Amino acid sequence: MTSSTSHDAAVGASAYDALIRHARETDVLAAVSRLLGWDQEVMMPAGAAADRAQQRALLARLVHERVTDPRVGDWLAACEQDASPHGDPLSPQAVNLRELRWQYDRATKLPASLVEETARHASAARHAWIAAKKNNDFAAFAPALRRHVELARQRAECWGWDERGEPWDALAEDYEPDCPARAIEAVFTPLRDRLVALVARFLELPNRPTRSPVAGMPIDPAKQDGLLREVVATIGFDFNCGRLDTSAHPFSSSTHPTDVRLTTRYDEDNVLEPLSAAMHEAGHGLYSQGQPLEHVHTPMGEHVSLAIHESQSRTWENFVGRCPQFWRWCLPILKRHLGAAVAGLSRRDVLWAMNFVQPTLIRVEADEVTYNLHIMIRFELERALIGGDLDVSDLPAAWNAKYREYLGAEVPDDRRGCLQDVHWAGGAFGYFPTYALGNLYAAQFFEAVLEAIPELHDQFAVGRFADLLAWQRQHIHSQGKRHRSPALCEAITGKPLSPEPLLRHLEGRLEMLASL
Amino acid sequence: MTSSTSHDAAVGASAYDALIRHARETDVLAAVSRLLGWDQEVMMPAGAAADRAQQRALLARLVHERVTDPRVGDWLAACEQDASPHGDPLSPQAVNLRELRWQYDRATKLPASLVEETARHASAARHAWIAAKKNNDFAAFAPALRRHVELARQRAECWGWDERGEPWDALAEDYEPDCPARAIEAVFTPLRDRLVALVARFLELPNRPTRSPVAGMPIDPAKQDGLLREVVATIGFDFNCGRLDTSAHPFSSSTHPTDVRLTTRYDEDNVLEPLSAAMHEAGHGLYSQGQPLEHVHTPMGEHVSLAIHESQSRTWENFVGRCPQFWRWCLPILKRHLGAAVAGLSRRDVLWAMNFVQPTLIRVEADEVTYNLHIMIRFELERALIGGDLDVSDLPAAWNAKYREYLGAEVPDDRRGCLQDVHWAGGAFGYFPTYALGNLYAAQFFEAVLEAIPELHDQFAVGRFADLLAWQRQHIHSQGKRHRSPALCEAITGKPLSPEPLLRHLEGRLEMLASL
Repeated sequence: MTSSTSHDAAVGASAYDALIRHARETDVLAAVSRLLGWDQEVMMPAGAAADRAQQRALLARLVHERVTDPRVGDWLAACEQDASPHGDPLSPQAVNLRELRWQYDRATKLPASLVEETARHASAARHAWIAAKKNNDFAAFAPALRRHVELARQRAECWGWDERGEPWDALAEDYEPDCPARAIEAVFTPLRDRLVALVARFLELPNRPTRSPVAGMPIDPAKQDGLLREVVATIGFDFNCGRLDTSAHPFSSSTHPTDVRLTTRYDEDNVLEPLSAAMHEAGHGLYSQGQPLEHVHTPMGEHVSLAIHESQSRTWENFVGRCPQFWRWCLPILKRHLGAAVAGLSRRDVLWAMNFVQPTLIRVEADEVTYNLHIMIRFELERALIGGDLDVSDLPAAWNAKYREYLGAEVPDDRRGCLQDVHWAGGAFGYFPTYALGNLYAAQFFEAVLEAIPELHDQFAVGRFADLLAWQRQHIHSQGKRHRSPALCEAITGKPLSPEPLLRHLEGRLEMLASL
Repeated sequence: MTSSTSHDAAVGASAYDALIRHARETDVLAAVSRLLGWDQEVMMPAGAAADRAQQRALLARLVHERVTDPRVGDWLAACEQDASPHGDPLSPQAVNLRELRWQYDRATKLPASLVEETARHASAARHAWIAAKKNNDFAAFAPALRRHVELARQRAECWGWDERGEPWDALAEDYEPDCPARAIEAVFTPLRDRLVALVARFLELPNRPTRSPVAGMPIDPAKQDGLLREVVATIGFDFNCGRLDTSAHPFSSSTHPTDVRLTTRYDEDNVLEPLSAAMHEAGHGLYSQGQPLEHVHTPMGEHVSLAIHESQSRTWENFVGRCPQFWRWCLPILKRHLGAAVAGLSRRDVLWAMNFVQPTLIRVEADEVTYNLHIMIRFELERALIGGDLDVSDLPAAWNAKYREYLGAEVPDDRRGCLQDVHWAGGAFGYFPTYALGNLYAAQFFEAVLEAIPELHDQFAVGRFADLLAWQRQHIHSQGKRHRSPALCEAITGKPLSPEPLLRHLEGRLEMLASL
């Protein structure tokens, strides 16, 4: 028996080693493709677009072939047979096996023909969407969206879903595993009603200025760049293992904890927006730089989910970057970089500008409060589309009705309505909620940080951010995919995700503004 | 028979299609690795070096696995069996088969263990060389170089060589196929003796200034950048399909004719050197941008060899960029960009500076005339090392003796002697001659251009370069690997490579300077 057991253990160990070696190499190829994506947005000459698409399609195919390689199934089976039922389910090996099994099953459940048709259709649909948005012509995009909904339902059928659930749940697993629609609804619905009421209170603040106090204050981008680099480095972003560049839309991208790249864009008319965007992307970048090197290119070295990634970016953008103590430290820095143009700017001006609530039509321009309502509208609509409760042709009317109801905003055209975002044009259903979930997790985590470090806000006032970052490193960044997001929330805060922390945070912002 | 023939033809066609599809994808992976190399030099944060090495090692392994895939051998055999003995050996299909056969045989002749040991040793030897150069300690590098020589001989044994030839020939095929040492020697030996005499005549010119007239003329790099972009665009480099950036050492890199990237470096103390370097790299880039799109990622869409690539860069750097007519056009452009600092610069000053001959110790700083002597020294020494006529321990003395003999220069230390170049530290024997061969091909091709376009120099004087580029596009860039370099030279000039055109060109430069 002893000899047989050690033989099995040796088989298991070698299967695990082979599996991990294979998975690491697959992830390196995926990382190379992400670097090509970064280059495409930041560096690539325009004429190279077609060749770059070919490069990335080849890498995507190689990655897919490796993920679905039958040897992966064999290695997983050998490891699972060998695993002790009494082993720690949260050990690195157990976590890697859990996640690689999930990834393998998910990838092999889809027929190659459906993967290819989805990729091909996404490319065509994206072109249709660009033209439809430009011409404000939803009807021109509707057939492509309808086909996307059909293909998404086919994918959901292949993947399957929980008996208490629905097809949408299967799609959302791509972005946020273990987070079915009914769980999101349970948090979003109470949040929505109270947010609508809260927005009204922000608008009724008697000392509210009529417009953001920094609107129309032109600043040289080179000076803004110096400011952003100083702030981003001070909050902890390591420029020896990262970069900051400009691109049409800010994003962050990582191939390894030692190569994390942020982008921002400079707006000559708004001095604070690029700083917020850079702090947001730096929040993502800090997560990537903090992932554990010993588990790199395996699930134990990867981020939990999109919502948890977003929670890290929102922490720095909103919970740090919009708070009054932060601006005690940052305003003099800002004035040193930007010079005479902002000499008259007061901390009161900045706090109003950073926390100016105003219902608008465009998600990416929304403030911290109304942003969540934009997301809920999209969640409700895509759930209805996938579930068959809403026909594609009725989408614009349904969209506009919800904007009226939740945001009190009249949508003048589909360009500023249901055609504004690229996500559905790419076939990504289940992505949108992760943005608001990120805000919710950020709020709930931040209450836990404040409990652990009561003087945190005082630290911000003197430009000290290391304790917050150390807390994130310990509880989140270093943990890889050990926990999925609901379990991580329980592990950190002792409670399931709740709307209360975010509502408390936003009510605190309201009180802060009222006292200015 | 008819039916059998068409069956065979169909088999052959489908084997050829499969072969080309495979080869194209392999080349895309190699191109991705080149882009990672570009990023490494231009963009990558320093901390990411180890991960980048892992990425590129993985891609190199995948490329090698694909090149040596036994299916490639089967497809080639099927195509060769099917090929008509009366077919055009220069048709795209015949050329692709010829080159892919060569590539497959060459790759499969090496055992994987030797490939891996060479790669591993190259990495270790490179580190040893960096330390040895820094400490001026050849003895510390000698064991690594000796091992490189042994490994190179083993590779040569695997590859084999012509009965009239020698092991060095087999190594040089990596860079310059069909160009054995005896063929190089036949051109280099007469060139060498006459160059040594020619250098003396340059030094004795009675109107020669004591130093280059632009030495120590500080210019803002941003202004230099504007100048370089205008010149590079005017000679025909397409910035819609390319970039110009800065790096520690200038280079050019291409992943596709639509994505060609040049780098340069700005020297605040020398205004002309960055321009020369940029024209050199743009010459490489024009070749890459001119490769035929229909044959992209196959041999018919690739450059002939390193020497032919170098001939294109040298044409623009030397034959255009150092000629008096070019400076009729360029001097006013230069003054417009660089302003007051160069207001006093005369065309005579520039021509002396661009053609200032001065024997020096460092190859990469050498002028157009003495550069070839630096190369010949390296060729003679590496040939003796590989052939067993020179022991590694005797390299410094042999190096120094040749510098004394050919350049009249005393080498004060190995750092400025045989440790100056990285090539041998990487195990690259057979690479150096391609630089001088490039100059020789450039000269011989340029005489052919002048015969076809007698007014070429007058065109340069008015900033017209399109006819020269069109000639290069037609005779060289669009031809891919149709001809190997000796055959290309015969096809274009009707003669084998000869030292005479380069000597005529350099004697012309001497006369031009004498008349200033």
